[in-house]
Amino acid sequence: MWEDNVRRVVPYTPGEQPKIQNLIKLNTNENPYPPSPKVFEALKNFDAGVLKKYPDPTVSMLAGAIAKAYSRDISETFVGVGSDDVLAMAFLTFFNSDKPILFPDITYSFYDVWAELFKIPYKRIPLNDDFTVNKEDYFVENGGIVLANPNAPTGVELPYNEVEEIIAKNHDSVVIVDEAYIDFGGRSVIDLIDKYDNLLIVRTYSKSRAAAGLRVGYAFSNKKMISYLQDVKYSFNSYTMNTPSIVLGTAAVEDKAYFEEIRDKVIKTREWTKEELKKLNFSFADSHTNFIFARYNGNMKRDDIVKALRDRSILVRSFNGERVKDYIRISIGTDEEMKIVIDALKEILK
Amino acid sequence: MWEDNVRRVVPYTPGEQPKIQNLIKLNTNENPYPPSPKVFEALKNFDAGVLKKYPDPTVSMLAGAIAKAYSRDISETFVGVGSDDVLAMAFLTFFNSDKPILFPDITYSFYDVWAELFKIPYKRIPLNDDFTVNKEDYFVENGGIVLANPNAPTGVELPYNEVEEIIAKNHDSVVIVDEAYIDFGGRSVIDLIDKYDNLLIVRTYSKSRAAAGLRVGYAFSNKKMISYLQDVKYSFNSYTMNTPSIVLGTAAVEDKAYFEEIRDKVIKTREWTKEELKKLNFSFADSHTNFIFARYNGNMKRDDIVKALRDRSILVRSFNGERVKDYIRISIGTDEEMKIVIDALKEILK
Repeated sequence: MWEDNVRRVVPYTPGEQPKIQNLIKLNTNENPYPPSPKVFEALKNFDAGVLKKYPDPTVSMLAGAIAKAYSRDISETFVGVGSDDVLAMAFLTFFNSDKPILFPDITYSFYDVWAELFKIPYKRIPLNDDFTVNKEDYFVENGGIVLANPNAPTGVELPYNEVEEIIAKNHDSVVIVDEAYIDFGGRSVIDLIDKYDNLLIVRTYSKSRAAAGLRVGYAFSNKKMISYLQDVKYSFNSYTMNTPSIVLGTAAVEDKAYFEEIRDKVIKTREWTKEELKKLNFSFADSHTNFIFARYNGNMKRDDIVKALRDRSILVRSFNGERVKDYIRISIGTDEEMKIVIDALKEILK
Repeated sequence: MWEDNVRRVVPYTPGEQPKIQNLIKLNTNENPYPPSPKVFEALKNFDAGVLKKYPDPTVSMLAGAIAKAYSRDISETFVGVGSDDVLAMAFLTFFNSDKPILFPDITYSFYDVWAELFKIPYKRIPLNDDFTVNKEDYFVENGGIVLANPNAPTGVELPYNEVEEIIAKNHDSVVIVDEAYIDFGGRSVIDLIDKYDNLLIVRTYSKSRAAAGLRVGYAFSNKKMISYLQDVKYSFNSYTMNTPSIVLGTAAVEDKAYFEEIRDKVIKTREWTKEELKKLNFSFADSHTNFIFARYNGNMKRDDIVKALRDRSILVRSFNGERVKDYIRISIGTDEEMKIVIDALKEILK
């Protein structure tokens, strides 16, 4: 029976993308602001006629622009269909040991899905009770390490020096640092690429670049590691990036001023939201991301709060699992949106 | 050393995409005509503001439009980033046996690359001397079968009844029929999906839909097989299709009249080109695709012809390998382009 040879997997469940009018969508950590005006301009100038041809398989325009924006060389830069594609390719390329790869028990829930898909042994390392990483847990034999920093869905950042220690103590493993949320106030370890040869940093356009719909992710590492990653990518799909993503993605990354403007706005709104949530008797680890992972200390149940918000067309995210079952993850929207959320919570919790 | 655990692969080499002005590009079987006017219109109406949000992970608009265009149900339809992505996911999903998968020795040269990438045992079955498939070769134990039909780079079509026999004799294996070129005069086995439960048909926008730059591929099968494929896709990347590809891809597949118009033009130009190549002492198997795989019977060497064409800014494709080393694959361009090519060949070969 052909079904005997099917790879059976339990896929990752993304946050829902419902088609509801006037929804306040705070469930997938998108940016509340539109992409850079340069993206609008590039779209206006885009000639659909070029679509008859294949895109440039080397994606040199986009990869070059990303490299330039972060003062790296293009040979140290990899581009994929969102950071999910980049991470999937990296797991496939670098995690081929018989020893387990390591990641926290509470983290981006795609890591174990990729491990299952590619039959990579893995071990979940429990975070401390305050959701911090205990770095010593990663000073053991392993087949690779993947750390989201700041972590999702907790929002907690592991300090630069501790990330460095983990990289330094694991020279026989590739350490992937998933910096999807780094732009909202975290400190990147990008400069450590020049110091250690086992570090891969993964980033995305979906949060700070306000372009989740473009599906652009990227990675930085040393030339050798990027070259291994490219070989696997070219063994999977010659042309992963379509022409619109190359053209519009280039425009997006070239607009540093706009990027900083909307990043600062999101940070400011986040800090206001933290204060308001505290007043409402929520507690949370301090977030350096564009979301807050909060727990209500009053009597109402988490799922009832989530439902009451949804009844008001406000979508937030919640996860199952013993350690996170009381938490709500709220993405940071505009000031107006967050005021509506806080007002709704006041009403719901009163 | 972390390098010990790297998956080392020899990637597929795509046809080059050089940035030369006034190039006649006949090396990657693109369509010489622009995408449907409806694609231009959809682009004009596209609001870059929507890019801040993730695309619909279920791709229901695009998958629904593709399903409708071929009178299939959306649950029997899979969409990916070009047929390469669809094929890569299908290999990963369905080819997990210890027995070798089978495909011809001369065929799309990505098949063995995917097999190597995913460590799938495989066996190349030699085509007959006239590049036809000997169906009995596929009536043996195997872990799966993949057949490009019409085949690339040969252009030869395996008759419908023989494809059916191969599917029928292999009920314990998934049979993938890669119909990338079927629209240019081949007979699809799409109706056999209702008769056999082990058939997956893969298609692409890159040839007959004139939209290689959009990166859209798709597959049809029964609901169960598509569901397994979706599970693997969702275990790899929640959002493979970006918003532009969804919106523009929907517009492209909805324009049946334009699709038929440019398909007929390509076929007409191909038939003219065949006559001219015969006069110039080329021979080739009859092509039902948008390319001709031809061999010059005179004294000039293949590589010298290819080089002479390139010196005239005409790009064609050639492959290494004992059985194909004398052949040139020429994609069908516009009438004007093919006249220039034929004139150039007359000059080169005189």
